[in-house]
Amino acid sequence: MNKEYYLKKADENLPQIFEKTIVPQTESHTVTSGAEFVIDLGNHYVGYFSFKMSYVDIYIDAPVRLKVRFCETERELYDDFDAYKGGLCRSWLQEEIINVDFPGFFTMPRRYAARYIKITVLNTPRKTLLSDFSFKAVTSADTDKLKPASISDPLLARIDKVAVNTLKNCMQRVFEDGPKRDRRLWTGDLRLEALANYYTFDNLALVRRCLYLFAAADNKDGIIHGYVYDYPEFFSGSYWFPADYSLLYVCTLCNYYNFTGDGDTFADLYSVAKMTMDAVYGMLDENGIATVTAKGMSPFIDWCPGLNKAAAFHGVYLYTLDLLVKTLEKQDAPDIVIYKERLEEGRRAAHTHLYNKGNGNFASTYTNGQNSVHSTVWMLLGGVIGGDEASDVLHKVLGTPDSIKPFTPYMHHYTVEALMKIGLKDEAREYIKHIWGGMIELGADTFYEVYVPGDPEFSPYRDRMVNSMCHAWSCTPAYFIRKYNL
Amino acid sequence: MNKEYYLKKADENLPQIFEKTIVPQTESHTVTSGAEFVIDLGNHYVGYFSFKMSYVDIYIDAPVRLKVRFCETERELYDDFDAYKGGLCRSWLQEEIINVDFPGFFTMPRRYAARYIKITVLNTPRKTLLSDFSFKAVTSADTDKLKPASISDPLLARIDKVAVNTLKNCMQRVFEDGPKRDRRLWTGDLRLEALANYYTFDNLALVRRCLYLFAAADNKDGIIHGYVYDYPEFFSGSYWFPADYSLLYVCTLCNYYNFTGDGDTFADLYSVAKMTMDAVYGMLDENGIATVTAKGMSPFIDWCPGLNKAAAFHGVYLYTLDLLVKTLEKQDAPDIVIYKERLEEGRRAAHTHLYNKGNGNFASTYTNGQNSVHSTVWMLLGGVIGGDEASDVLHKVLGTPDSIKPFTPYMHHYTVEALMKIGLKDEAREYIKHIWGGMIELGADTFYEVYVPGDPEFSPYRDRMVNSMCHAWSCTPAYFIRKYNL
Repeated sequence: MNKEYYLKKADENLPQIFEKTIVPQTESHTVTSGAEFVIDLGNHYVGYFSFKMSYVDIYIDAPVRLKVRFCETERELYDDFDAYKGGLCRSWLQEEIINVDFPGFFTMPRRYAARYIKITVLNTPRKTLLSDFSFKAVTSADTDKLKPASISDPLLARIDKVAVNTLKNCMQRVFEDGPKRDRRLWTGDLRLEALANYYTFDNLALVRRCLYLFAAADNKDGIIHGYVYDYPEFFSGSYWFPADYSLLYVCTLCNYYNFTGDGDTFADLYSVAKMTMDAVYGMLDENGIATVTAKGMSPFIDWCPGLNKAAAFHGVYLYTLDLLVKTLEKQDAPDIVIYKERLEEGRRAAHTHLYNKGNGNFASTYTNGQNSVHSTVWMLLGGVIGGDEASDVLHKVLGTPDSIKPFTPYMHHYTVEALMKIGLKDEAREYIKHIWGGMIELGADTFYEVYVPGDPEFSPYRDRMVNSMCHAWSCTPAYFIRKYNL
Repeated sequence: MNKEYYLKKADENLPQIFEKTIVPQTESHTVTSGAEFVIDLGNHYVGYFSFKMSYVDIYIDAPVRLKVRFCETERELYDDFDAYKGGLCRSWLQEEIINVDFPGFFTMPRRYAARYIKITVLNTPRKTLLSDFSFKAVTSADTDKLKPASISDPLLARIDKVAVNTLKNCMQRVFEDGPKRDRRLWTGDLRLEALANYYTFDNLALVRRCLYLFAAADNKDGIIHGYVYDYPEFFSGSYWFPADYSLLYVCTLCNYYNFTGDGDTFADLYSVAKMTMDAVYGMLDENGIATVTAKGMSPFIDWCPGLNKAAAFHGVYLYTLDLLVKTLEKQDAPDIVIYKERLEEGRRAAHTHLYNKGNGNFASTYTNGQNSVHSTVWMLLGGVIGGDEASDVLHKVLGTPDSIKPFTPYMHHYTVEALMKIGLKDEAREYIKHIWGGMIELGADTFYEVYVPGDPEFSPYRDRMVNSMCHAWSCTPAYFIRKYNL
């Protein structure tokens, strides 16, 4: 199988885009220069904005110059974009200055992610009427096919609704990570979106498409590129190959097979999975701990300042091996033996070198003595310890005020998964209500890229204004709530 | 004949738009944030700008935010648009901020008038290649049909070329007054464009179209609205009905008939001409001098601060009567008698009340004693005095340092016409070389809306930045040079 074949398969699974016109309850506005007003779409959508411009008494004898800002959340309405100091390109801030030459309907050509639209009239030669606001929302999620869910807890029902909305708005030509920013397909985000998708919109073709796109990506020593672009042309290959994400591609493929039983696709892509498993195996250190030394392969794990990722990455490796073995077992595949052996070796190595049984934590020389929820969660998910022992260790790290805790809903997801794995369903439910319910309390229509309870200003990019407020990796409450009847 | 009929006729004469792709000699630019460069199209054009954006090493992972400024002249490249303080809407200044999402070709949707295009890279996430600049120039002038002209004087030949370019760029769906600003059809501008058109591109349908559009316009007590819009829908009728422009509509119709012999169109529109002639006749004062008292009907004459327009307006009235009589004579029309009588009465009244024979000027109580080139030129064009007497009076006012002189090429046109009328062909030629040659010295590719020798900062709108630098009413050297073999 080669790149062309994978891209052909990806194309075959290009999704239909569903359009829905949102007509906000906003009245018309008769404006002069300096006027400003806000349109509330009533919910977060992704798409294209249109309006009508008319003259009031006599013809508008000059272009009308407008500043149009698209806001995912209400507070962005009041942000000072000129004060932006973040590390990412300012162009991600959704604001345009447009000149409208003629009366009539006007559609802005770019796609935006927004609930609120603020229009500032910079210059108009005379009174002008702005009206007929509408927003053509686009998604590859077929909302008519959304699986029903019976959720008795009102907060969980609300969380599910917002999670579904988050997923819906990230489902476009690919599973995007964020429809405001970065608008591309990431391995790690894909894995979580695909999980939520099986229990909601169930768009299997879209998962297939994304799996094939990564198969077509340029890899580096067996590690898959962290993201790809699919439009206007396919592009992968730059400088970031997070090794944990590459492993999670293998998980995504296994989940897909387990959910669909689609052996053809699995067979098509198994060589890609094997390539990554062998690459990580090849990077084990003398103690048998998965280590990355090559530039650009550092694992992601979380946007958490100061986090030591050594133990967590080894956990991702074990977690992947475990899922792969279980998946291959269903197929009686001969490779099972190899991966089973690696899994057992890897768990033993973790027990010896990463686990501090005496202190009941995963602080070790590998993590420079650092204890974190991240290390613990991934060690548990990797099956290094289990049962009451696992429960004690996890409770301890979650309850220690100065232990390092997750900053992103992405890492919160794996924390919930760890709680579920060791049978703490009630605590998993409460964790979801605490974290995702916290965003609901802030008024979220979609779940955020980062969420640190009590620190609404946190940004991995040094400026909160560029944070994505509808981020794919935050949609998994819908998965947990629906799969486990929380 | 009603409005619907006139608009139908206007539609029937909708011109073909000719497109020509201009590829500037500009190289590609590899840019980062803060970069700035200028594209020189080599001449002034009206149309649409395209370019290609490409990634250099790795994909552009954020939109690229550009400021794009379109300049009719070189000095606009360095203007500070934020310091704009003019009376017209700032939105006329041709500058956009655009965000380009994807690599590939990008066409800016609005039409611009420009020789120079300045691109400032506001934000790009990484090195970006901008290339394949092109400008799709549009005009309804068929350049293949441009009448040849043999002009021996090199400066006149250059003036003719720039005049033809000015006309060409103003010829669109209508004869626009300025393709940067105001982009609409004005009666006064139309008259001069039509004259130049007969000797250059000879697009008769476009003249017909414009004549019918004004016939469809809302009028006020018989005075035609000063301008109309034809796109996206027909609109006339607001607050400005310059009575001199309304008369010049009659002149435009007469010129059209005299040039084409098209009696059907003349017959269709004669009632509109008659309406205006009767309206102005109805406004004669007790001395028989054409006077406007109604709000919104003040004559235009010129953008000349402090100008008293009383005598000049009466001159326009007489000039129109004279041309109308000569045109009706060709058709043996019964109305000739009426207009001939009015012309004689009007000239007599002017001689008595406007002409100061003793001082050899047109300063009177009507003009509060003001002497101006404008009064003189229009009195001469109206045939109030002639021969050596006219020549003396005109020389005197032109040679008096403190007499009021024209500010616009529009008024310069009528000054040249007056010189020609009294037989001063050499002086007319020198006047053209002085005025339009002065713009050539400033590097004009097209002739300007206002030109005051020695005062490049003058603007009727309190800010030179908004002046139109390609203005239809400045194109008539092509008419004089070609018609009179200057």
